[in-house]
Amino acid sequence: MAERALPKHPSGLYDPIRYILSLGGKRLRPALALMAADALGADPKAAMGPALAVEWFHNFSLLHDDIMDEAPLRRGKPTVHEAFSSNQAILSGDVMLVQAYQLLAELPAAQLPSALALFSRTAVEVCEGQQHDMDFEIRQDVSEAEYLQMIRLKTAVLLGASLELGAMAAGAQAAQGRSLYAFGEALGLAFQLRDDLLDSFGDPALFGKAVGGDIAQDKKTFLLIHALQTAGPEDRAVLDRWIGVREPVMRTEKVDAVKGVYERSGTRTACEKAIEREHQKALAALDSSGLNAGNSAALRDLAERLLARES
Amino acid sequence: MAERALPKHPSGLYDPIRYILSLGGKRLRPALALMAADALGADPKAAMGPALAVEWFHNFSLLHDDIMDEAPLRRGKPTVHEAFSSNQAILSGDVMLVQAYQLLAELPAAQLPSALALFSRTAVEVCEGQQHDMDFEIRQDVSEAEYLQMIRLKTAVLLGASLELGAMAAGAQAAQGRSLYAFGEALGLAFQLRDDLLDSFGDPALFGKAVGGDIAQDKKTFLLIHALQTAGPEDRAVLDRWIGVREPVMRTEKVDAVKGVYERSGTRTACEKAIEREHQKALAALDSSGLNAGNSAALRDLAERLLARES
Repeated sequence: MAERALPKHPSGLYDPIRYILSLGGKRLRPALALMAADALGADPKAAMGPALAVEWFHNFSLLHDDIMDEAPLRRGKPTVHEAFSSNQAILSGDVMLVQAYQLLAELPAAQLPSALALFSRTAVEVCEGQQHDMDFEIRQDVSEAEYLQMIRLKTAVLLGASLELGAMAAGAQAAQGRSLYAFGEALGLAFQLRDDLLDSFGDPALFGKAVGGDIAQDKKTFLLIHALQTAGPEDRAVLDRWIGVREPVMRTEKVDAVKGVYERSGTRTACEKAIEREHQKALAALDSSGLNAGNSAALRDLAERLLARES
Repeated sequence: MAERALPKHPSGLYDPIRYILSLGGKRLRPALALMAADALGADPKAAMGPALAVEWFHNFSLLHDDIMDEAPLRRGKPTVHEAFSSNQAILSGDVMLVQAYQLLAELPAAQLPSALALFSRTAVEVCEGQQHDMDFEIRQDVSEAEYLQMIRLKTAVLLGASLELGAMAAGAQAAQGRSLYAFGEALGLAFQLRDDLLDSFGDPALFGKAVGGDIAQDKKTFLLIHALQTAGPEDRAVLDRWIGVREPVMRTEKVDAVKGVYERSGTRTACEKAIEREHQKALAALDSSGLNAGNSAALRDLAERLLARES
């Protein structure tokens, strides 16, 4: 089920799959599955089915989420529903989800029931996360805890599952798999919070896209939610004045004003602390996995690099 | 995973699922799975997981197909994308597909790999069938063979899989399962052709919706494709004159004119013969399954009733 093995026909169904896979991306989820198997002393190839399955699943969710979010670009290129059509993005996404199960089913029969249960539970959670994300767009009272739960479902659980599936493929004990899941889940939360932080405070020379996009669109990130709940009256008035202002000519002034609030209200610091909290949780989970320092080094390094990244 | 067991929250995700399941339908696919297990002497309850899985899968495909086809009504009620939104129909459909796998996974571990392989292969085929169906809408040269292949993929393979999954749940030999699959596949083709026939030639008093909908919308059914290929010059001119005419005031005249062509060109008879051919194929497959007449009676009766139905 590698890219080259996709059927040619009907091209309306398979061309969009070839397209989204050709756009690249970090390939973080398959890397985690393979690294988990490797850290456990297994041949990483044993985890190839689950590794491809989580990457396929992730791309399925991108196809459908981008329709729902009316996103024009993905990885700097037109999204599938723009480059092809919404109907094709729906149906090609459906096929990718089914193919993810086909890839997962490459696991030995003994590992299949538990892997299948974890994969499906995670898939439901990712859908629930997307629904929460859409619900939050039209709600004004989203709490920090609700936001963290949303990104846990939408992003973090799939990183956890990628690792645990890799561990299952390596024949690990269930408890060891759960520890690696916990590592991935905390890493995923930290990863998404780092995303939120970079979007507002990234170095424009390194970030790769325009800084301030979330602010410009009033996106309910950790930062905005925290600031709305903690800013004093004066800063709250600044937020109230700018939220809803979408004129491009006002963008720079808006981004600067809201970033000022984020600094003064302690929001930036709170986000950095939350990232560090999840990072420490991830490392503690890795310690509890019982892997020795040598075997867990690659996962530890990956976490460092993901949380120090500037783009 | 029965309807009552669906989570309440997030309601935006699960309410559309409750809605589509509440609309009823023939429940043909789960009936076939349970009947296959019963015919093989197993407790039908053994096939409950696969039975619900195929019904869930079918409803997932309705949610997404209805978006793509811009269908306003399903079972006489507003479609999910009309009653809720397109985004909800996409995401709730995704969850239903995942839940179908969760239901299938209720099978004993020994049966899971083969059941999973059949289910996923079928799911891919159903998506391919939908893609062909959409491709045919903008093509003028669809052949009868291509049409039959499209309805085989879009409809027939899922009926076949429903039966074979029920047989797997009953612990049947692989060859017996394949015979039941062949029965369901032929039955599915006959069933869809009967649908095409009824839409044009059904008894208005019994059909349940307005006769002639396919003709009014120039839908490329077996009938239209056959007539375009076999009608003489005069009848061909009638078709060419009416195809594309969509004014409601012309509807009755159009339907009568095209039905006249279908009668004169032997199209109606060809469709009836194709139904009978598939019906006989289905019965032959049932014979080859090695079930004795008593055990296969219910399946035989179901086929008779489906192909004699007037609505």
